[in-house]
Amino acid sequence: MNRLEKALNEAAATLVLEVERLLPETELPEARVVAAMRYATLNGGKRLRPFLVLTTAALFNVARQSASRAAAAIEFVHCYSLIHDDLPAMDNDDLRRGLPTCHRAYDEATAILAGDALLTKAFEVLGGAPTHPDPQVRADLVVALAEAAGHQGMVGGQMIDMLAATRPMDIPAITRLQRMKTGRLIAFSCVAGPILGKAHPMQRQALEAYAHDLGLVFQITDDLLDLEASAEEMGKKTGKDAEQGKATFVSLLGADRARAQAKALGDQAIQHLESFGNSEPAELLRDTVRYVLERRN
Amino acid sequence: MNRLEKALNEAAATLVLEVERLLPETELPEARVVAAMRYATLNGGKRLRPFLVLTTAALFNVARQSASRAAAAIEFVHCYSLIHDDLPAMDNDDLRRGLPTCHRAYDEATAILAGDALLTKAFEVLGGAPTHPDPQVRADLVVALAEAAGHQGMVGGQMIDMLAATRPMDIPAITRLQRMKTGRLIAFSCVAGPILGKAHPMQRQALEAYAHDLGLVFQITDDLLDLEASAEEMGKKTGKDAEQGKATFVSLLGADRARAQAKALGDQAIQHLESFGNSEPAELLRDTVRYVLERRN
Repeated sequence: MNRLEKALNEAAATLVLEVERLLPETELPEARVVAAMRYATLNGGKRLRPFLVLTTAALFNVARQSASRAAAAIEFVHCYSLIHDDLPAMDNDDLRRGLPTCHRAYDEATAILAGDALLTKAFEVLGGAPTHPDPQVRADLVVALAEAAGHQGMVGGQMIDMLAATRPMDIPAITRLQRMKTGRLIAFSCVAGPILGKAHPMQRQALEAYAHDLGLVFQITDDLLDLEASAEEMGKKTGKDAEQGKATFVSLLGADRARAQAKALGDQAIQHLESFGNSEPAELLRDTVRYVLERRN
Repeated sequence: MNRLEKALNEAAATLVLEVERLLPETELPEARVVAAMRYATLNGGKRLRPFLVLTTAALFNVARQSASRAAAAIEFVHCYSLIHDDLPAMDNDDLRRGLPTCHRAYDEATAILAGDALLTKAFEVLGGAPTHPDPQVRADLVVALAEAAGHQGMVGGQMIDMLAATRPMDIPAITRLQRMKTGRLIAFSCVAGPILGKAHPMQRQALEAYAHDLGLVFQITDDLLDLEASAEEMGKKTGKDAEQGKATFVSLLGADRARAQAKALGDQAIQHLESFGNSEPAELLRDTVRYVLERRN
């Protein structure tokens, strides 16, 4: 196992422990929604966002508890968005990470509520005293997450994506859509560390720029995999973009130019990390770019 | 127009102005979700929660901007919960406040996203610097709202309510369900003021106790109206509890005993206000109890 795989596994283990701490099973009458929240957060996934939080936090020697709570909060938001995106009224997916989607494992009403409760929980965790001794840091995290996840960010991006099949989209429009839909939450994953560590604004900006490029690389490789990989490899349905007639980087540029574009963005992402030297977390962030460029699922 | 009606109208006007400020129309590609958010928050409603925020804030001379932002945040959460509760997978309602529900006016996907974005916006507003100069106050508001709205509160209550038709429920179980489903957000509406005003913990507790009783009075009168009022009077479908075979205060106690119970809880709510004397906001809070007891819609 290489250095990055080891760090990803460690991040996943940290995340699972933190979720167990923040969201234990219950026998109260509302147990069903808590079980659905746990189902959606504890069944795997790459844990890329928690890994980015923990790794960027390590650049600034942030306390473990602070970093792992922030990692859990971001994963809650990511998982809520997957639950709601998978609903029949949205993407209508039956399979996620090789398992039934939340509304298939439970039911639609429970899935809607579980998503709502995970989003709410994220803010409870970030705002809570154990996340950081300085309340200004906690308030900053809350606002930054809300801006990344709300109508200006992830939800707005999802809205545009729902309309995309019926609208002509060019490269600038798709870039904006993807920055909103996935880029801003990935960016928040990389700035939670500098916020917690009270880093210099230039360092925060460098990590945000890194994250924006990484997010686009991730999206382009996702589009390529949607075109080229099997549902079995991906643990979810593939070939959906073409089926829905959605414009993507790949449909507009063609696979070869899209691949070259991803490579160029990846190089640029790595350049943003120059000021962080050769520390272990900085090297892991560089490895991440190469890993996303080469991923097969 | 009496004193309370005047204050309710003023609160509604303040709320609308604040929503216009926080959530202006846009022509960006995500305009549709913003329009749906505005549709769900700007089309009336009693504005009871904003009124409670503004009135309890007035007890402690909280700055207008702080109070009106907190009022808007709570109304965002209330309106998000109505959007999601009205969805086909939940209560499947076509009518709300005499108008098509959000998913009828737009579509299901947009309604899900608009609800998500309103919930997110609430935390952005509470965490934001203009809400209070002290970040500890903002972090406290965020955590208190999340606890009121999440799996321990409103969402958990909604989950239990969805299961209620298939489970035997007694009075303690229904009381817990209602405190979670509607009581905790009403309670937060009454403690946002003391949190913003850094009131003595005893004062905060008195207002929380007032709100819990008021919330139950509101629920019991809601159950009575569901039984007795027409859809036209209520601006939404009625007779649903009996149709769904759901246990309510009214089905378990009978209408007469439920009415007596509401009256007793109302008296108790008023008693919790004793320490606030005869200031205008304290009198308005007393008027509110009487208004809810006598409401016809």
